[in-house]
Amino acid sequence: MDIKQYMTRLGQQARQASRVLARANSKQKNAALNAIADLLESSMDILLAENNKDLEAGKERGLDDALLDRLALNKERVEGMAEGLRQIAALPDPVGEISDMHYQPSALQIGKMRVPLGVIGIIYESRPNVTADAAALCMKSGNAAILRGGSEAIHSNQAIAQCIKQGLKEASLPEDVVQVIETTDRDAVGELITMQEYVDVIVPRGGKGLIARISGNARVPVIKHLNGICHVYIDGRADHKKAIAVAYNAKTHRYGVCNAMETLLVDTAVATDILPELAEKYQQEGVELRCCERSALVLEGVVNTVPATAEDWDTEYLAPILSIRIVDGIDDAMEHIFQHSSGHTESIITEDYSRARRFLAEVDSSSVMVNASTRFADGFEYGLGAEIGISTDKIHARGPVGLEGLTSQKYIVLGDGHIRQ
Amino acid sequence: MDIKQYMTRLGQQARQASRVLARANSKQKNAALNAIADLLESSMDILLAENNKDLEAGKERGLDDALLDRLALNKERVEGMAEGLRQIAALPDPVGEISDMHYQPSALQIGKMRVPLGVIGIIYESRPNVTADAAALCMKSGNAAILRGGSEAIHSNQAIAQCIKQGLKEASLPEDVVQVIETTDRDAVGELITMQEYVDVIVPRGGKGLIARISGNARVPVIKHLNGICHVYIDGRADHKKAIAVAYNAKTHRYGVCNAMETLLVDTAVATDILPELAEKYQQEGVELRCCERSALVLEGVVNTVPATAEDWDTEYLAPILSIRIVDGIDDAMEHIFQHSSGHTESIITEDYSRARRFLAEVDSSSVMVNASTRFADGFEYGLGAEIGISTDKIHARGPVGLEGLTSQKYIVLGDGHIRQ
Repeated sequence: MDIKQYMTRLGQQARQASRVLARANSKQKNAALNAIADLLESSMDILLAENNKDLEAGKERGLDDALLDRLALNKERVEGMAEGLRQIAALPDPVGEISDMHYQPSALQIGKMRVPLGVIGIIYESRPNVTADAAALCMKSGNAAILRGGSEAIHSNQAIAQCIKQGLKEASLPEDVVQVIETTDRDAVGELITMQEYVDVIVPRGGKGLIARISGNARVPVIKHLNGICHVYIDGRADHKKAIAVAYNAKTHRYGVCNAMETLLVDTAVATDILPELAEKYQQEGVELRCCERSALVLEGVVNTVPATAEDWDTEYLAPILSIRIVDGIDDAMEHIFQHSSGHTESIITEDYSRARRFLAEVDSSSVMVNASTRFADGFEYGLGAEIGISTDKIHARGPVGLEGLTSQKYIVLGDGHIRQ
Repeated sequence: MDIKQYMTRLGQQARQASRVLARANSKQKNAALNAIADLLESSMDILLAENNKDLEAGKERGLDDALLDRLALNKERVEGMAEGLRQIAALPDPVGEISDMHYQPSALQIGKMRVPLGVIGIIYESRPNVTADAAALCMKSGNAAILRGGSEAIHSNQAIAQCIKQGLKEASLPEDVVQVIETTDRDAVGELITMQEYVDVIVPRGGKGLIARISGNARVPVIKHLNGICHVYIDGRADHKKAIAVAYNAKTHRYGVCNAMETLLVDTAVATDILPELAEKYQQEGVELRCCERSALVLEGVVNTVPATAEDWDTEYLAPILSIRIVDGIDDAMEHIFQHSSGHTESIITEDYSRARRFLAEVDSSSVMVNASTRFADGFEYGLGAEIGISTDKIHARGPVGLEGLTSQKYIVLGDGHIRQ
């Protein structure tokens, strides 16, 4: 197979299909999404059989249990996929929304209309449910999608792709609206991320290695975040109870997620009041504490700590490990965040009006919070209704990315024979 | 001079200065802008003397008259620069604007806050006034700027840079908020467009060659448009008078601008009614008409025409040349636009409600108009108050880019000790 030729064909087909989809009304798009949901459920046996092929092959290749678990489908997970599609069908359609319409002194009426980006490339790893989920988000926002899943999930993804194609057909939409790359050849990814004529944006979903590789080589814009080094800063005027609750939740609610806190900053004014109690709670959960010299001193004799190295402040653990640093007030805390944050999510715990206001204005991260757990940084919690990812870039989409992040706005201008003088 | 080292230093200084500027309030930024305006006027003699050095050197190097004219400063042009700065000072400050603030079911209050992008690199050609103008737009939107003007304007740009530095100082802002690259070495541009750690976005202002070169090699996102191949489509239900007025204005109001019409599409139903009258008006202005076979037939014996070649439909003339094609209705017109448009601006002339609605929804360009001249596609005409450029990209900023296009939005989340269950 000539990969370049194959990918160019996919790109051209996607571009053509995207024009038809951009014109499709909400009813037609929702009909397709609901049809795909029904087809996934009625194809349960085929999906599980094809998934089994992937699982068998994975075991033979010696994939570890965690990876096999991510790869596995069962009745519940297939129903979950179908349910996800129906939820996306129920969301408001972002396409065609008109805003800021106003008259200019020229008497022209000028505003903005929300439109699809065009063609979106999604690159992901082992979970087959991403195939249905990503396809649905692209479709609903009026974009054609080219999907590239992990090679270990190829049979599952192709079976899901068949349901998608059938559902599109039933709703009289072109089958090429969603194309799942059929080859596991790595060169296909290289083509996908450089086909600027055919692909408008790339969304990588997966581990850091995948995302770094893609954003390093892409010529097409990428919506991504690389790291989630999130901070909670317990200010000198924090409410004791809120501080304990939020700092505990931000670390221990879930470890392997990008919005978990990785570094706790505590104002020296409240360190002896708050840190020992908090550290005991962490210790009960088995969280390893990597401490700066001052915090180690405060915790001496209370819990076991490990000395933090310079590297710790720049590490996303995604594990029951927390780095702790005592700082001298809000300026010191914000300086630490400036130096070490990945720009994902930071939260201040304070009852002080002016410090809350400063933290909100001055911390340059995709989400900035007051008295709330970083774990809330999520498209569903923010009311987006869906999430294709979280962006720590500043260009285009920032923070949790829902349907709106997969669209753009063009200007529309209504006149009555207006000419420029 | 070690260019890499020099540029890295500028980048680091810009990043540091951007943090201070991001915190500066509107009053302080406006004070700096007004101070610079005053300094430009009070430094008139120095500016003209330094500009004269550039002009002398340019003449020696044999620059043509058009280039020398763009390069030249005089009393009026310096006053124009100062006036431009005062206008930017008078615009509303986009930074800190909060929108979409609402309560979620979790009782968290969630919204978006507009923030600067950080550091903006501007690369431009001979006009020295861009130095003041671009610096002011970046400053007002809270961004530090690194400016790289044409080598032929180096003395003028450095003299303007001195006024900017002095004005920043008078307003107690860091001088590094605006840095004008002091070397004419081309490698400096290569560094600027690849310093992802220090530069958030590049805005090239100049000819197609410059923009293509930069966007081909940049690793930093670029806000740009390459071509302005704008279309006017005179529909079968167009008002005769409006059609003539708009099509004439869109071509002849100014030739060398990106929003001038380059191709006229006319529905076959009104071609014999409208084209001869319009063609005569073009001929009086000396516009060369490059016609498809059918339009050439309609104009036979009326005016001189030239047969259009395939290349004509993809050419931005920026000159008194127009390509004309007769099409079979709106679908044919939109297909031509899809194939040949650069995505800048297209206008339909029609009294038909449904066709106007379809054209607005289906044409995928940064500005889509009904019954208005393409010449209106401009930040000032759209009420943005300023314009750093026009973007034909779909990611981030699209269409005329004002202050808002130089900003981003972060999420802000207000809680009361909220933890995720």
